[in-house]
Amino acid sequence: MISKNKISEIKKLSQKKFREETGLFMVEGSKSVHDLLFSQITVKELFATENWIMGHADWLRGVEAVEVSETELGRISALTTPQQVLAVAEIPQHELSEVDFADALLVLDGIRDPGNLGTMIRTADWFGFRQVVCSLDTVELTNPKTIQATMGSFSRMKVFYTDLVAFLRNPAIQGTIYGTFMNGKPIQSADFQKNDILIIGNEGKGISAEVEACVQQKIHIPSYAVSQEHAESLNASIAAAVVMYQFRQ
Amino acid sequence: MISKNKISEIKKLSQKKFREETGLFMVEGSKSVHDLLFSQITVKELFATENWIMGHADWLRGVEAVEVSETELGRISALTTPQQVLAVAEIPQHELSEVDFADALLVLDGIRDPGNLGTMIRTADWFGFRQVVCSLDTVELTNPKTIQATMGSFSRMKVFYTDLVAFLRNPAIQGTIYGTFMNGKPIQSADFQKNDILIIGNEGKGISAEVEACVQQKIHIPSYAVSQEHAESLNASIAAAVVMYQFRQ
Repeated sequence: MISKNKISEIKKLSQKKFREETGLFMVEGSKSVHDLLFSQITVKELFATENWIMGHADWLRGVEAVEVSETELGRISALTTPQQVLAVAEIPQHELSEVDFADALLVLDGIRDPGNLGTMIRTADWFGFRQVVCSLDTVELTNPKTIQATMGSFSRMKVFYTDLVAFLRNPAIQGTIYGTFMNGKPIQSADFQKNDILIIGNEGKGISAEVEACVQQKIHIPSYAVSQEHAESLNASIAAAVVMYQFRQ
Repeated sequence: MISKNKISEIKKLSQKKFREETGLFMVEGSKSVHDLLFSQITVKELFATENWIMGHADWLRGVEAVEVSETELGRISALTTPQQVLAVAEIPQHELSEVDFADALLVLDGIRDPGNLGTMIRTADWFGFRQVVCSLDTVELTNPKTIQATMGSFSRMKVFYTDLVAFLRNPAIQGTIYGTFMNGKPIQSADFQKNDILIIGNEGKGISAEVEACVQQKIHIPSYAVSQEHAESLNASIAAAVVMYQFRQ
């Protein structure tokens, strides 16, 4: 059972404003909740169906599970198809001083689509990136759609939000600052090093002029056009994936 | 102005059932409508704001534009944020006999997310694929979310729907049939040829057992794990993009 007040409290976490006020966010679905429970993130509450609790007792590791009906889950869920489990956790706080400039960095400038951000974090996790630095106008990691799209990778990735221009001027940066542009050189010709920085821009507008001024090497994913008419661009999360893949070659 | 009947007729095209009944689908937004108008697809109707019509008369090429208010557009749109223009067009019909086995083919087995399908078609267009063959349980190309995600590439791509097992047994296939699997060999070691076939599977379940039996070479996108815990998989549209990118190297 779950009180009306509690339902309203959790439901509100779909909204940025209430996540900021409370410092909490929600995580839904077995895979994501599994990764959350096995991460460093503090879990405050966990709501699940009887079936889920019976099947996953070994995941709980001291976290108390509140048994709820599927109808109740539907009331607190931010998803159109609620899953069997929903957890409320503390938003991880990472200080910029934690950034490891000896390791590769993915930098995101103005990503607005939560699905794109989540997919980029999932892909970064696959390709061994552990740090993502986002501009202040990038959608929040804790947006339920972002969390959903990361498929659990949110729990392993350090995601920072900061002013990119100031960040990219940090003298501790040793690697090359790469950015994707239509007029960049083919990514195959880039000589990537372990400590390089890869910047991906906004879905429609690309990298902003201020951030462009910090880019040291412009790169580009070559299209393979069979006729004059072809796609004008790639989706931002696709571009990020291809660049990270090539980076690891 | 647009009649109540017409609003209801167009609105219904958001649903598969009515697209099948009428053979029509809708296309929204300037970029997509531009690519539609300059394609071989027959445009039946076009609704746009006064501003849009004034600015884009040279795109119309004989298509009559019906002027509507933004409120009216909002009533017929399938988008949460309606654009300035919406067109109704005939669903292109491609016969399997049109498949060119001398050219590369992307094959999709059970893709369910319209955004993923649309992104794959956009990416395929970028990497010079002109043919996509989908299993019968793949989401429809004409789903408004798919069309939206293709960013106009729907107008240039031949998309076929058919039984994949029968299709993959076609003796006209000369190239190698590749499929992505967790236990496949690294894609970097594949010796791709121009007439190869690349199969991408369902978001959660991957390639079905029946289709797997037709695969000649299993391939895999290597992860770059910095610790034991990392993403378990890539999003299907990301996997498709990386494979198509590698294919063009």
